Amino acid sequence: MTPLPDIIRYPDKGEWKELVRRPVLETEAIDKVVLPILEDVRIGGDKALLEYTRKYDGAHLEGPEVTHEEMLAAEKLVDRDLRQAISLAYRNIETFHRSQQIRPKRIRTSSGVTCWQKSVAIEKVGLYVPGGSAPLFSTVLMLAVPARIAGCSEIILCTPPDTKGRVHPAILYAASCSGVTRVFRAGGAQAIAAMAYGTESVPPVDKIFGPGNQYVMAAKQIVSRGRVAIDMPAGPSEVMVLADDSARPGFVAADLLSQAEHGCDSQVLLVSVSERLIRRARALLLRHLAELPRKDIAARALSNSRFILVRDAGEMVDLANAYAPEHLIISASNAGGIAEKVIHAGSVFIGNYTPESAGDYLSGTNHTLPTNGYARIYSGVNLDSFVRKITFQRITRKGLKAIGPAIIRMADTEQLTAHSLAVSLRIK
Amino acid sequence: MTPLPDIIRYPDKGEWKELVRRPVLETEAIDKVVLPILEDVRIGGDKALLEYTRKYDGAHLEGPEVTHEEMLAAEKLVDRDLRQAISLAYRNIETFHRSQQIRPKRIRTSSGVTCWQKSVAIEKVGLYVPGGSAPLFSTVLMLAVPARIAGCSEIILCTPPDTKGRVHPAILYAASCSGVTRVFRAGGAQAIAAMAYGTESVPPVDKIFGPGNQYVMAAKQIVSRGRVAIDMPAGPSEVMVLADDSARPGFVAADLLSQAEHGCDSQVLLVSVSERLIRRARALLLRHLAELPRKDIAARALSNSRFILVRDAGEMVDLANAYAPEHLIISASNAGGIAEKVIHAGSVFIGNYTPESAGDYLSGTNHTLPTNGYARIYSGVNLDSFVRKITFQRITRKGLKAIGPAIIRMADTEQLTAHSLAVSLRIK
Repeated sequence: MTPLPDIIRYPDKGEWKELVRRPVLETEAIDKVVLPILEDVRIGGDKALLEYTRKYDGAHLEGPEVTHEEMLAAEKLVDRDLRQAISLAYRNIETFHRSQQIRPKRIRTSSGVTCWQKSVAIEKVGLYVPGGSAPLFSTVLMLAVPARIAGCSEIILCTPPDTKGRVHPAILYAASCSGVTRVFRAGGAQAIAAMAYGTESVPPVDKIFGPGNQYVMAAKQIVSRGRVAIDMPAGPSEVMVLADDSARPGFVAADLLSQAEHGCDSQVLLVSVSERLIRRARALLLRHLAELPRKDIAARALSNSRFILVRDAGEMVDLANAYAPEHLIISASNAGGIAEKVIHAGSVFIGNYTPESAGDYLSGTNHTLPTNGYARIYSGVNLDSFVRKITFQRITRKGLKAIGPAIIRMADTEQLTAHSLAVSLRIK
Repeated sequence: MTPLPDIIRYPDKGEWKELVRRPVLETEAIDKVVLPILEDVRIGGDKALLEYTRKYDGAHLEGPEVTHEEMLAAEKLVDRDLRQAISLAYRNIETFHRSQQIRPKRIRTSSGVTCWQKSVAIEKVGLYVPGGSAPLFSTVLMLAVPARIAGCSEIILCTPPDTKGRVHPAILYAASCSGVTRVFRAGGAQAIAAMAYGTESVPPVDKIFGPGNQYVMAAKQIVSRGRVAIDMPAGPSEVMVLADDSARPGFVAADLLSQAEHGCDSQVLLVSVSERLIRRARALLLRHLAELPRKDIAARALSNSRFILVRDAGEMVDLANAYAPEHLIISASNAGGIAEKVIHAGSVFIGNYTPESAGDYLSGTNHTLPTNGYARIYSGVNLDSFVRKITFQRITRKGLKAIGPAIIRMADTEQLTAHSLAVSLRIK
C-alpha cells in the first residue's frame, strides 16, 4: 500500500489555484461549541474553568495554578542534556529577537518639527501551549523569550494538564527559565476565556498568543472582538519544499515527514523541476515512514500531500508565492537567489543543511508562524508582536508658524474650524 | 446654559476606573444590520453594491469606479494653496514613515547559523475614507503614503459619494498624488464587503484600512475572520490634555474643541494640577464654542467631557495611562519628562506649540490611531501595518553539526522523531 498521491506533472498555471487550495474550516459549527464555554467561564470564573478541565482533560483540580513548589520540582526532573539544549535555544531565540529592537530615531520632518516612535511593551500577555501526546515546551520558549525582551510585566501561561492534573516538567522548566510569571493548568476554549476575561485565579491579559486546535482558534478570534488582542489566526501546520537535482532526496524526505508527523491535517508539498528527485524522495519517505512512532498520523497527512513537477525555478517560486506556505524549504542550486524572490511565506529555510527542525527549536527564528495562506497578510510572531509603537511629536513656536498656514488650509477644507483655531491662536 | 460637566476634584484612585470608562458599544444589534449587507454584496457583487449606494447615499450610479477623466478634472478644482498644503503634508508623512523602514540585518545566532527578517509589502490594500459633511482627504494621505512607501502593488480607495454620485475633488486629488491606483464610490458596510470579497468592479484586497462609523467597524471585524486583515478596531475619537499653570488656557480650550467638533460621541478630557487653569480653559472653551460652525456637535460631545483636578504630575500621567487616550497633549512645564512616562497612548503631543491639529494633518505622524482604550494593545497605523516580516535562515553543514544534537534532544522529548531524523541524516 502506498499512501502517496500521484505526481502532478507540469500543471498549467490555470490549475494552480486548485493545487494551492486549503481545506475549508467550518467555523459556524465550531463557534456553537465555543461560545457557551466562553460565556460560562466569563460568568462562572474558576468554578466553570475547573469543570471544563474535568470534562475535557479528565483532571480533578483544586485550583488551576501550578504552585511554586511544583515549578521547583520540575527543574530536577529535566535531565542535563535537555537543560543544555533549552539553554542554547534560549540564547539563539534571544539573540535574534533582541536584534529586532528599534532604536528611537528622532526625525525632523520640517524645521522645528520633531517626530519619533517608541516601542512600549504590552503589559500583560497570555501564552497558550496545547496539550496532547507530546509536551510542546519549545513553544514556551518561542513565546516567552520575546515577551521578556519586549518587557511585558506579566507573562502567564495556560496549558492543559494530564488526567492526573500534571504538566510535563519540560514545559514548567522552560517556563521558569524564560520568564513566565505564572502557569495555569487549563486548556482549550476555556483557557482562552480565562485569559481574556480573567477568573479569581487567572488574571485577564491584554494579548493572547499561541497555537491550538480549531476550538482554541475560534475562541481566540471571538474574544479578540473585545478588549484583548491575539497573535494571528491559525490553521494546520504546513511545509512546502522546493528542490532540484542538487537536493538530497533523503533530506527532502525527512523534511516532508517532519511536517507530516505534526498532525493528520498537516499540509505537505514538494515542488521540483526534477522528476528523478521527486521519485527518490518518495521512495525514501515511504521507507522512513514505516519506522516512525507517529507513522499513522504521518500517513494520514501524506495521503493529502502534493508532489508537483514544474518546468523551471521560476515556476517553483511562483507556486510557492501562490501557496504562501508557513514553512518554505529551498534545496536548490541557486537557493539564495530563489529565496530573494519569495514574497509570501512565514519562514524560509535555505540550502541543504537548513532543515525546518532547526527553526522549530533553536536556530533563533520564531516557530509561531502564519498558516492557511495567512502569510499573505500576517507576519509570524516576532518582537513587534509584544509591543506597541507610540508616536511622539514636539513642535517649536517657530516650527508651528512655518507649517501652521498649511494646517489651517487643510482643516478649513475639511470644515474642522476648531482644528484651525488651535493653530491660529498659537501663531498669531 | 453651560454644557460642561462639573470639575471632578481630586478623585481617589479607586474612582479612576469609572472616570476612564468608555461607552459600551452594542455590537450584536449592529451585526444584525451588517451581516446581511456583507452577504448581499458577497453574492450580488456590483449590483448589490450599487443598490446599497442608492439606498444609503442616495446616489444612482452606473458603476462604482471613478473614471480617469474625473480624476484629472479634480486636480483643476483644487486651488493652489490647498495643493501646496497637501504637498507639504505628503512630504512630512513620507519622511516620517520612510524612517520606519528596517534594513535587513543578518544575525549570526550560532556559528554557521544566520537568520534575518525581510519586510515585504502586503500586495493589495483597500483604504476606506468615510463620507459625511466634510471631505476627509487627509485620511487618504495618511493611509496611501505609507502603503506606497511599503511597496503595495494595488492601493484602492472606497469612499461614499454625495447624492449626485460625486466624490469631493480634494479626496480625488489626494488619491492621485499619493499613489492610490483606483477609486470607488462606495461607503459603509457595503464598501467593506466589496473590498473583502471583490465584485465585478472592485478587486478583493488583502488588508482593509481606515476609520468609519460603528457599521463600518463591525463590517471590518466580521470580514477579518476570513481572508482579509484589518488595521485595528476603532471607536469614537478622543483627546486627553494634561496641563499645569505653564499651559495657555486658550490653547487648551482650542485643543479640547478640536476634538469635540469631530462628532457627538467624541471623548474630551482635561486633567490638570491647576484648578485655575481648568476654570480659565472652560471659560474660553465656552466663548469659542459659540462661534463654531459645528457648535451643536461640539456641545453634545462636551456634555460628556471630563475635567479632572489631580494632585501632581505623577497623577496626571498615571491617569493618562489608565485611560490610554488616542491623542494625548501634554502642556506642562516638564512636558518632555512626563511624556517619557507615557506607556498607553496612540500619539503624544508635547509642549504648548504642538497642537493635535499638526499631527492630524501634516507633522508627519499618522492620524489613524487606536481609540477606545485599544492603545493598550494596538499601535496606530505605521509602516509596519503595510508589510509582513518574513524570516529567513541559512545554516552551514558545520553549523548544523554543532547545534544538531541539541535539536535532536528537544525533538525527541517532544516525541517528534522525524524532526530528529531531518537533522541526524544531515549530520551523520
